[in-house]
Amino acid sequence: MIVGVLGGGQLGRMLALAGTPLGLRFHFLDPAPDAPARDVGTLHVGSYDDQERLERLAQNAVVVTYEFENVPVEAARRLEALVPVLPPPAALEAAQDRLTEKRLFARLGIPTPRFGETLADVGLPAVVKTRRLGYDGKGQRVLRSEAEAATAARELGGPLLYEELIEFERELAILAVRSTAGETAYYPLVETEQRDGILRSARAPAGAELQGQAEELAGRLLAELGYAGVLALELFETGGRLLASELAPRVHNSGHWTIEGAVTSQFENHLRAVLGLPLGSTAALGPAALVNLIGGVPPLEELLAVPGAHVHLYGKPPRPGRKLGHVTLVGAGADGVARVVALAEHAAR
Amino acid sequence: MIVGVLGGGQLGRMLALAGTPLGLRFHFLDPAPDAPARDVGTLHVGSYDDQERLERLAQNAVVVTYEFENVPVEAARRLEALVPVLPPPAALEAAQDRLTEKRLFARLGIPTPRFGETLADVGLPAVVKTRRLGYDGKGQRVLRSEAEAATAARELGGPLLYEELIEFERELAILAVRSTAGETAYYPLVETEQRDGILRSARAPAGAELQGQAEELAGRLLAELGYAGVLALELFETGGRLLASELAPRVHNSGHWTIEGAVTSQFENHLRAVLGLPLGSTAALGPAALVNLIGGVPPLEELLAVPGAHVHLYGKPPRPGRKLGHVTLVGAGADGVARVVALAEHAAR
Repeated sequence: MIVGVLGGGQLGRMLALAGTPLGLRFHFLDPAPDAPARDVGTLHVGSYDDQERLERLAQNAVVVTYEFENVPVEAARRLEALVPVLPPPAALEAAQDRLTEKRLFARLGIPTPRFGETLADVGLPAVVKTRRLGYDGKGQRVLRSEAEAATAARELGGPLLYEELIEFERELAILAVRSTAGETAYYPLVETEQRDGILRSARAPAGAELQGQAEELAGRLLAELGYAGVLALELFETGGRLLASELAPRVHNSGHWTIEGAVTSQFENHLRAVLGLPLGSTAALGPAALVNLIGGVPPLEELLAVPGAHVHLYGKPPRPGRKLGHVTLVGAGADGVARVVALAEHAAR
Repeated sequence: MIVGVLGGGQLGRMLALAGTPLGLRFHFLDPAPDAPARDVGTLHVGSYDDQERLERLAQNAVVVTYEFENVPVEAARRLEALVPVLPPPAALEAAQDRLTEKRLFARLGIPTPRFGETLADVGLPAVVKTRRLGYDGKGQRVLRSEAEAATAARELGGPLLYEELIEFERELAILAVRSTAGETAYYPLVETEQRDGILRSARAPAGAELQGQAEELAGRLLAELGYAGVLALELFETGGRLLASELAPRVHNSGHWTIEGAVTSQFENHLRAVLGLPLGSTAALGPAALVNLIGGVPPLEELLAVPGAHVHLYGKPPRPGRKLGHVTLVGAGADGVARVVALAEHAAR
C-alpha cells in the first residue's frame, strides 16, 4: 500500500519511518532533490503545481497527505479528483491564511487574542504577521509603536494580520487526531518554548488541569473540518484560560516527543487516521522533553553519550536558524536535558 | 555517513529504520530485487561473490556489517581489504559451521549439550543438524532410533553434527553488544518459544536469576572474538544451569522486542557499536512480549485494534513457514498477547 505525501521534509521522513513497519511504502513530491524524505521512500522531484508529477504521485497511492502546510491548495484540490487527500484540503486552506484561520476560531467560539486587518483593530503592543506563507517566526514582528508598525508594514508587504500581544504564562500545544472512521484521540498537552518564533524545546505532559479545555477546543476544529489525520493547535495559557494561536493541519514539531514518549507516535497515528485504521493509544510513557537542533548539529558521539538521549537527524545541510534535528529524553532527569540544551546551543553558534 | 550491509532482509530493514534517525544512510547487497530493505536504502542486487558489487558496496561506506549469517565468509574477507567489516569475519566463520561453533564454546568453557560428528558420540535421543546453512529449523531432525538416524543422514546429506537431545525447562537467549571502543552491554534475558525450529514468540525480561550467568558466557565470546556489534547467544535452561545452543553474530529475532521495549533497540546499539559510538541503555521499559507472524499476515486493522500492539511487517510475499513480520506488546496484559497469537495462528493457516 503506497501513501503519497506532498512535501519531503523531516515530517515526511518521520511519517515514512513510522509507516514502513506497518508495511506502507511512500512516494513524496518535493521541489528539492535532496529533500530529507529521499532516504525512506521514492522522491518525485518537481513543483507542487506540475500536473504530470501530481498525477504520478496519485497513480499508485491509496491516499495522499501533506507534511507542509504551504503546499498550494490548488494542488491538493487537483489531486482530490484522483485519490483521497487527507487532511481535507479545506483544513489546508484555513491554515494558510492567518485571517481565515482566526475567523474560523471565532466562528467556532474558540477564544483567541484580539485580531484584525489593521493595527487600530487591536491597539499597541501588537504582533503583525503576513497572512500567508509565514513559518518558524518568518514574516512576523512585535510592534510597540506606530513607527514600528509603519516599518513592519512596508517591509513585510502583502496582506497583514494584526494581533493583540498577549501576556501569557505558557505556550502550549495540543495534538488531536481523528480517523476517517470518526474515531478521535488527543495527546497530552505539551509546553513549548519558542524563541524568535522557532520552537526550541517542549515538555510533555504539561499538566492535566487544562487538558479537557484544550481537547474541547481542538475537538471543535476536528468536527467542523470533517478532519482526518493529526491536527496541532497552538495555544497561550493566560490566567487559567486557553487562547488559540495557530492550527497546523499536519503532524507537528511539538509532537516529536511522541516517537519515544507515547505508546503510539503522532506519525503512526496520522497514518492510521488517514487510512481509516484503528487509532493507537496516545498515552505518555513518562515525562518527556524534546530539544530541537537548530542551525548546527552537535557531534553524534556527544549527544549519544547523554543517557537516554534519542537522536533524530533530518539529513539536511546546516544553515543558521534551520531545524536540523531533535533529541528526545523520556523520564530523564533535568541533567540530561540541560546537557542536550548546552550541546545544541554550542552547535548553533 | 553510509553503512554497507550484506543482506537486505528484515534485519537490514530494521537496522536502517533505527539508523536513519541518527543521520546514517544504508546500502545493501542482496541477490533478491524485492529484498525487504529496498524501501529504506539503496539496494545493490547481486550475488555475494560478485567482486564488482562488493566494491560498489564498500565504496562510500564507513563500515560494512551483515544481517544474515550465511553470507560467504570469503565475501566478508574480500570486503575487509577495502573497509572495516564488523562483526569480525571470524565470528561469521565460527557461526557458519555448527561444529566449529560448538568447539569454540568448548574451548571457552561454555557448557553445551554433548556433541560430535557421529551419533555414537552422543547416543539416542539426539538432534542431527547439517553443519552448514541451516536456519529456522531447516536442516535438522530429532532422532529417536537408529533407523531415523539413517534416514536423516541420507536426506540431509553433507557433513552433520549430532547433539544430545536436552530436556530443558526453558529456551532463553541473551543479546550482548560490544563497541569498537570496547564498551559492552547486555539486554535482559529473553524466553523464547520455538516450534519446528522457528521462533514463535518471546518474552522479556525472563527473570534476573540467570542474567549474570548468561552475561558471563556471552562475555567470553565477545572477548575471544574481538567482537563489535550485537551478538545473540541461544541457551537452554536445565536445572538452574545454562547450556549454549547457538550463537548468531548479528541482531536477532529474539531481540525485536527491544524496538519498543528497551531504552535503546538492538538495531540502534548494533550500529552504535560498529561505528564506535557510545552504547545506549539496554534496560527494559517493562515486560514485553513478541509474537512472530509466520506464513500469513492478519488484517492490519485487526492487529492494530489490539491495545498497545506494535506491528512490524517486513514487506515480504507470504509463503508457508516464512517470517513475515512481528508484533510487540509492552507492559500489556495476557489478553492482548493471546489476541495477537490467535490472529497470527489464524493467518498462518
